[in-house]
Amino acid sequence: MSATQSLAAYVANANTEDLPPSMLHEAKRTLINILAVSLSASADSGSHALIDWARDEGAAPKASVVGSTLRTSAFNAAMVNGFLAHLQDYDDTHFPTVLHPTAPVWPAVLAVAEERGTSGRETLAAFVLGAEAACRVAMSVHPWHYDMGWHITGTAGVFGAAAGAGRVLGLGTDEMNTAIGIAGTFAAGVREVFGSHAKAMHPAKAASNGVQSARLATQGFTGADDILGGRRGFWQVLSPNGHDEVALLADLGSRWELGNNGLKPYANGVVSHPIQDAVITLRNEHGIAPEDVASINAEVNPLVLELMNRAEPRRGLEGKFSFQHCAAAALVDGAGHDAQFSDARVADPVISAVRSKVSATIDEAMREDEVRLSITLTSGQVHSIYVEHATGSPENPMTDSALEAKYRSLAGEALPASQVEELLGAVWELDSAPNVEQVTRLMTKSEG
Amino acid sequence: MSATQSLAAYVANANTEDLPPSMLHEAKRTLINILAVSLSASADSGSHALIDWARDEGAAPKASVVGSTLRTSAFNAAMVNGFLAHLQDYDDTHFPTVLHPTAPVWPAVLAVAEERGTSGRETLAAFVLGAEAACRVAMSVHPWHYDMGWHITGTAGVFGAAAGAGRVLGLGTDEMNTAIGIAGTFAAGVREVFGSHAKAMHPAKAASNGVQSARLATQGFTGADDILGGRRGFWQVLSPNGHDEVALLADLGSRWELGNNGLKPYANGVVSHPIQDAVITLRNEHGIAPEDVASINAEVNPLVLELMNRAEPRRGLEGKFSFQHCAAAALVDGAGHDAQFSDARVADPVISAVRSKVSATIDEAMREDEVRLSITLTSGQVHSIYVEHATGSPENPMTDSALEAKYRSLAGEALPASQVEELLGAVWELDSAPNVEQVTRLMTKSEG
Repeated sequence: MSATQSLAAYVANANTEDLPPSMLHEAKRTLINILAVSLSASADSGSHALIDWARDEGAAPKASVVGSTLRTSAFNAAMVNGFLAHLQDYDDTHFPTVLHPTAPVWPAVLAVAEERGTSGRETLAAFVLGAEAACRVAMSVHPWHYDMGWHITGTAGVFGAAAGAGRVLGLGTDEMNTAIGIAGTFAAGVREVFGSHAKAMHPAKAASNGVQSARLATQGFTGADDILGGRRGFWQVLSPNGHDEVALLADLGSRWELGNNGLKPYANGVVSHPIQDAVITLRNEHGIAPEDVASINAEVNPLVLELMNRAEPRRGLEGKFSFQHCAAAALVDGAGHDAQFSDARVADPVISAVRSKVSATIDEAMREDEVRLSITLTSGQVHSIYVEHATGSPENPMTDSALEAKYRSLAGEALPASQVEELLGAVWELDSAPNVEQVTRLMTKSEG
Repeated sequence: MSATQSLAAYVANANTEDLPPSMLHEAKRTLINILAVSLSASADSGSHALIDWARDEGAAPKASVVGSTLRTSAFNAAMVNGFLAHLQDYDDTHFPTVLHPTAPVWPAVLAVAEERGTSGRETLAAFVLGAEAACRVAMSVHPWHYDMGWHITGTAGVFGAAAGAGRVLGLGTDEMNTAIGIAGTFAAGVREVFGSHAKAMHPAKAASNGVQSARLATQGFTGADDILGGRRGFWQVLSPNGHDEVALLADLGSRWELGNNGLKPYANGVVSHPIQDAVITLRNEHGIAPEDVASINAEVNPLVLELMNRAEPRRGLEGKFSFQHCAAAALVDGAGHDAQFSDARVADPVISAVRSKVSATIDEAMREDEVRLSITLTSGQVHSIYVEHATGSPENPMTDSALEAKYRSLAGEALPASQVEELLGAVWELDSAPNVEQVTRLMTKSEG
């Protein structure tokens, strides 16, 4: 079997009963996390534009949009929900690859499950397998692919979305390979759009393209036989500098990449999270006020400068890709929620003043979840801290209760408190639910 | 201005009155040509699968699908029509790049024009400008991009679709740049899917993504400022081995790439067209029967072996990417319509026997529209021919009457003869029509 066929065969034939309970639990956690950030994101102007687009499509109401009264086709719902899940850069991160596996995969799986009336348990299993496929494809091209400038969440994401949607549809090995062989040629998304709404369209398109590919595969539509390994396939064209077939297939069914996936405590690029942990800890321990700061310097992993070096962000979304802004907002506000990345907070003179005092130097030995940071005060005093593993990293995961606190805070921006609690309960009980209807109903707004 | 802004400014601000009449005429010819091949393609099982998908979406009826009773959203109509236009590989070809500019651009422009009630003349102008944008983006990355394995019709096509749809919407320079800056990150499509239905999804997705990007740009949605030239943009990520900014922008408004675009006399990959011209000419001149053939050898441009070397195609679509099959079918049937690329004709024992006797050798000096070909008979006699420019090449274009003959033959497969003539007349008169309604109504099937 080719590389793609081997992956397809695994996803199509894995027994739901063989999935570890810890992974089904992690599937619920990732769903709670993206429901939280999607509900918060639903108020954004970009979300309004995309929801208006979907509303004007006028499609048949088969699947629900988070935080909206809109019901639409599974294709459109997957697109909008994929956008909402990633817009705030507040979703989860697969640490080995910087892939955000949930935003492309859960919206695809949930929309098809809602349309089909799939059981909660089978839906959770489809997500686990789809996320595994996305992570495995990402690992097979990491780091070469991301280094070229690809946004791996869009490119690897569409494989996971097709696999997850195909699993809900019950595709056999050949149809699953076809679904992936169609979806894989839609792989897209460049890092140039970071800092704009278009970034969140990457998982949006991955999710909807996955839904459509799985459906077309059931209708005799044809795709590539080996979209990953073929001579003009994904590996050769989108990762010409290297690929790793072993990373794609090794230990499938015994090692689970959702175990290497972290939930975010801050609404911005993950590589600056250790900086924010460090600044907030020092700020709270020593009562540092903005006007006390002479300089903030961090010794960091090279990706911080590669991805997040924007000394003067011009708008909120750019602030999420500015380690300088992340550090300054952490110092001034003691937080890194989406509220710290509004256009107003980016333009705020107090934050701007601190931002101009933030610098970073590369330490090649520093991991991505690690930092050594010092704050020098105008008095000359220096406070230093070492963060070994940032909150939300695999070695220091967010607890269920911390996740619930994040969820309540963000979901409460869009839904009444009672509905916030009901929805949370419905997700925690999803593995025993006959279908996903409770979740998809409670994640929406009521008419009028 | 950045490279992308310069292109956007040109497309947004060009005066319709300044477009040469010959280009508006060429726009009509490309529309007649894709209506012909789309009507023929509408009977394919892949077309049925995609049209069924669109029907089940249940979207509001705002735009028409060629050869179908379905009316759907502009987004969905652009997708299905983009698929139909390219499915038979019988659409047009931009010779400098092997881009097929019409399949991604016309469906996007026509769907938005139908929805908006745009005049025939403005619609033709939007196509000319959108096609120019697609060709210019293609030229800016040729040959490096295609050589990597990208299907340039999908990748450059989405730029043209966004530009053309944006022109119909009347976008100003900044909104046009945003539309292109959103669409460009959806650029996708690898050559691994050649020979499958997924290939025609490249212009399909390009068309629909262009429609959506143009719409979102009017709603405050943001994209990249310079999607082409940015550090992690289209040029660096999808064409790392080279790009040419001069080719993108030189002589905009005075040189027109539709003048370098050819309509196809054969329903297969363009690089084997000179072979088919040569075989059909020798066959007809000398009355060569299949059983007379000992061998057929062609001296060809290297792309023939790069793109179309499939000695034993297994299904119809693969036959379109087999120069051996193209030559054998030309010898046996004297033609290269879609009928020569059915699964049955690919499996036919007479054609298979001739196919096994076809070979090609590379002559690096040979252009893509040129061939030197010999047929050796079992008697030992050798017939040789040199084709300087294949039919449908810029130096040997298809005449209007030859185009009408192709159109009547293919459109007649799907529509009554009277409607075939009415539709043809409506396109020839499009520049004086108040809107595109006559064309979009006549290109569909009547209910019941």
